[in-house]
Amino acid sequence: MSEKIPYKIYLSEDEIPRQWYNVRADMKNKPAPLLNSKTLQPMTHAELSEVFCEELAAQELNETDAYIDIPKEIRDFYKMYRPAPLIRAYCLEEKLGTPAKIYYKFEGNNTSGSHKLNSAIAQAYYAKQQGLVGVTTETGAGQWGTALSMACSYFDLDCKVFMVKVSHDQKPFRREVMRTYGASVTPSPSDTTEVGRKILAEHPGTGGSLGCAISEAVETATNTPGYRYVLGSVLNQVALHQSIIGLETKTALDKYGIKADMIIGCAGGGSNLAGLVAPFVGEMLRQEADYQIVAVEPASCPTLTRGVYAYDYCDTGKVCPLAKMYTLGSGFMPSASHAGGLRYHGMCPTLSQLLADGYMEARSVEQTAVFEAAEIFARVEGILPAPESSHAIRVAIDEAMKCKETGEEKTIVFGLTGTGYFDLMSYKKFNDGVMGDYIPGDDEIAAAIEKLPKVEK
Amino acid sequence: MSEKIPYKIYLSEDEIPRQWYNVRADMKNKPAPLLNSKTLQPMTHAELSEVFCEELAAQELNETDAYIDIPKEIRDFYKMYRPAPLIRAYCLEEKLGTPAKIYYKFEGNNTSGSHKLNSAIAQAYYAKQQGLVGVTTETGAGQWGTALSMACSYFDLDCKVFMVKVSHDQKPFRREVMRTYGASVTPSPSDTTEVGRKILAEHPGTGGSLGCAISEAVETATNTPGYRYVLGSVLNQVALHQSIIGLETKTALDKYGIKADMIIGCAGGGSNLAGLVAPFVGEMLRQEADYQIVAVEPASCPTLTRGVYAYDYCDTGKVCPLAKMYTLGSGFMPSASHAGGLRYHGMCPTLSQLLADGYMEARSVEQTAVFEAAEIFARVEGILPAPESSHAIRVAIDEAMKCKETGEEKTIVFGLTGTGYFDLMSYKKFNDGVMGDYIPGDDEIAAAIEKLPKVEK
Repeated sequence: MSEKIPYKIYLSEDEIPRQWYNVRADMKNKPAPLLNSKTLQPMTHAELSEVFCEELAAQELNETDAYIDIPKEIRDFYKMYRPAPLIRAYCLEEKLGTPAKIYYKFEGNNTSGSHKLNSAIAQAYYAKQQGLVGVTTETGAGQWGTALSMACSYFDLDCKVFMVKVSHDQKPFRREVMRTYGASVTPSPSDTTEVGRKILAEHPGTGGSLGCAISEAVETATNTPGYRYVLGSVLNQVALHQSIIGLETKTALDKYGIKADMIIGCAGGGSNLAGLVAPFVGEMLRQEADYQIVAVEPASCPTLTRGVYAYDYCDTGKVCPLAKMYTLGSGFMPSASHAGGLRYHGMCPTLSQLLADGYMEARSVEQTAVFEAAEIFARVEGILPAPESSHAIRVAIDEAMKCKETGEEKTIVFGLTGTGYFDLMSYKKFNDGVMGDYIPGDDEIAAAIEKLPKVEK
Repeated sequence: MSEKIPYKIYLSEDEIPRQWYNVRADMKNKPAPLLNSKTLQPMTHAELSEVFCEELAAQELNETDAYIDIPKEIRDFYKMYRPAPLIRAYCLEEKLGTPAKIYYKFEGNNTSGSHKLNSAIAQAYYAKQQGLVGVTTETGAGQWGTALSMACSYFDLDCKVFMVKVSHDQKPFRREVMRTYGASVTPSPSDTTEVGRKILAEHPGTGGSLGCAISEAVETATNTPGYRYVLGSVLNQVALHQSIIGLETKTALDKYGIKADMIIGCAGGGSNLAGLVAPFVGEMLRQEADYQIVAVEPASCPTLTRGVYAYDYCDTGKVCPLAKMYTLGSGFMPSASHAGGLRYHGMCPTLSQLLADGYMEARSVEQTAVFEAAEIFARVEGILPAPESSHAIRVAIDEAMKCKETGEEKTIVFGLTGTGYFDLMSYKKFNDGVMGDYIPGDDEIAAAIEKLPKVEK
């Protein structure tokens, strides 16, 4: 083992970035604008501000400023859990017997257990700045809801979380963390909203869906004075906030003179991936460097590898604006056997454009292979990874094994977005040997894509 | 906020201590020796080696070497999750409006979620060194079992965990982490041991106890070739390994010229407290400095505040050696309403002697007050603390509030031993307002102490 590069590269607090990086400013082909779902015209700042905080609406539309200052209050909060370590996976390398050099950026060392807190605190801050009383949101697996409840607690904002009913019932621990941070958690669909009551009437006993929870959260935000809706992924503003992951990663690599060859991130709505790769893609866009960027998604929800690049609704309830993105159709539902997150039908518009323009590639992996990688990783690196993050681990291990064959000393960097403490029922399935794989058929995907809205490009 | 002292003081990996500190070497009054439960004579190295690894038996008896080298293999493992940060609780100070300066040493940033890993990896290493096949242990709340399964996985040792049946059934997540790290987890009492079968015959349907699980683990270790028993607390060897907590804390404080006035730790079997305070008590013993050292225990299991200092059995099954320690009697069982760990009837012999000699004081706190402190802390510091650790938080907050009255700028350091991700059912009780307090009556304690073995001092 090299004595020069430590196991964990911790930057100092002074090295926490003071600005987020907005990759759109460096893109020749900008992501397509969000469209008003009624008029099909580009959303204006005024329209966006009815749903989102004004500053966040501005960030959503900002395609020109490459760097946006991180307010001091947010930087102070970041200091509670950042800089996040960039870890050299010496033990994994040794276990695999690979000449590859593997690094991972670990975002799990905070109570929300994931990178979601990076954007939650920013969104809570701007809500507070605007003098709002509170925010609403939806959560599925629960990472985003937990992160937002922590952020709101810090700024003394009310936080109303609509939690997909089946998760609410199956993940009581997640619910209790949110309650401990003072959030109210409502199982969705609920009788507190019009859309919820409608769905309950049509589908009594339903376990709910993310799409329905989004609709309830948006309705509550727009009907309650002093509230706005916030979202933990997909949006360009979220990608902006998450750029702190990539900026810190790049600073740490540069500090030790390490040049990454390949950067791997898991992809659901794209929040982590967009943040991790942003400054590296920026270098590619400015033709300063070249990297192999790999997005990894579940084979059971293959948005990037089998979807189409088109305008679609961001939510199942079709109350949100339309985005041009890789999508499987807003009606696509991944198999119930799929564990964890990464189950969104669409993808961050910025990332979608970058994929379309060839700046990154996408791969899909099956979940038993993902948990196998998770277990190998946990046993030698000591961190129990979230199922989502383990998609990136799978491809990192596969690539490292290829290097073992070729002898190439490739430098691989991947994003370890979070921990799996709240996913142990999925680990149990894997440990018990009863976890399955599910790959949607071509017919199923074609049927969902068939229903895409017809929008002129 | 001071710009000089960062939120988190991270030492570099080079600053991880290379030696553990053995406080017994500096004690004028040594802790009393362990006694053979049959002969009542001091345990010899040969006797201890029938149960423990030889090197660990030697460490258990070592009262002369103040510093013991940490083998390189253990230091390499420590680098996966250490140095642990010493965190300045700026946000808590602001929330309380106190002039006190509060620091906490956070040991929860590893998958076992607690400080237990510090000793688990040492014990697994020495077992491997001795050429053993595996180790056995017991676990109650599950932190120790998790830590040991991680350590054994790293050194490719078999790990057999006897988990108190009621915890095994109520904490499936803990069980699954251990299984993910390759450990076998047996609910105790089980039919795999003689003592287990005996207890099952006498008490069909029992939920088990830590004492019973210890007896099963010891029986399995002594009856299976190539196995030894390991223990996560109480023993002097564990206190030795945990000294890394205090050594890092002291290095971090010294680096920034900070002099602690008061050091607070929670106390169950004493593993965390002994480690945290060791180098500070060392200075007191050598008359180089003075500190106020406070042990905090649950009012429902008040070993230090209401127990006696006497020889007692370390386990309910009376198969282990006797130790002279503060004890409530090995038959004492804390109320079922008590959440989390810190439910041991005795206390580390080293700490017991230090308390008897006046080098520290002990306080007991009630559990609703503990969870109240935990929630205040979680909301402003962003870390969801373990119930055990929250005992120290309670006293730290109480002391900080006293400073608010007096205006004293006291420097308070406390040990945050771990995270509460697996304790959310207890948080739920607190959030739902159905958590109670339980203080054992004088009669109950007198009855348990009455049954102490009669041993000449």
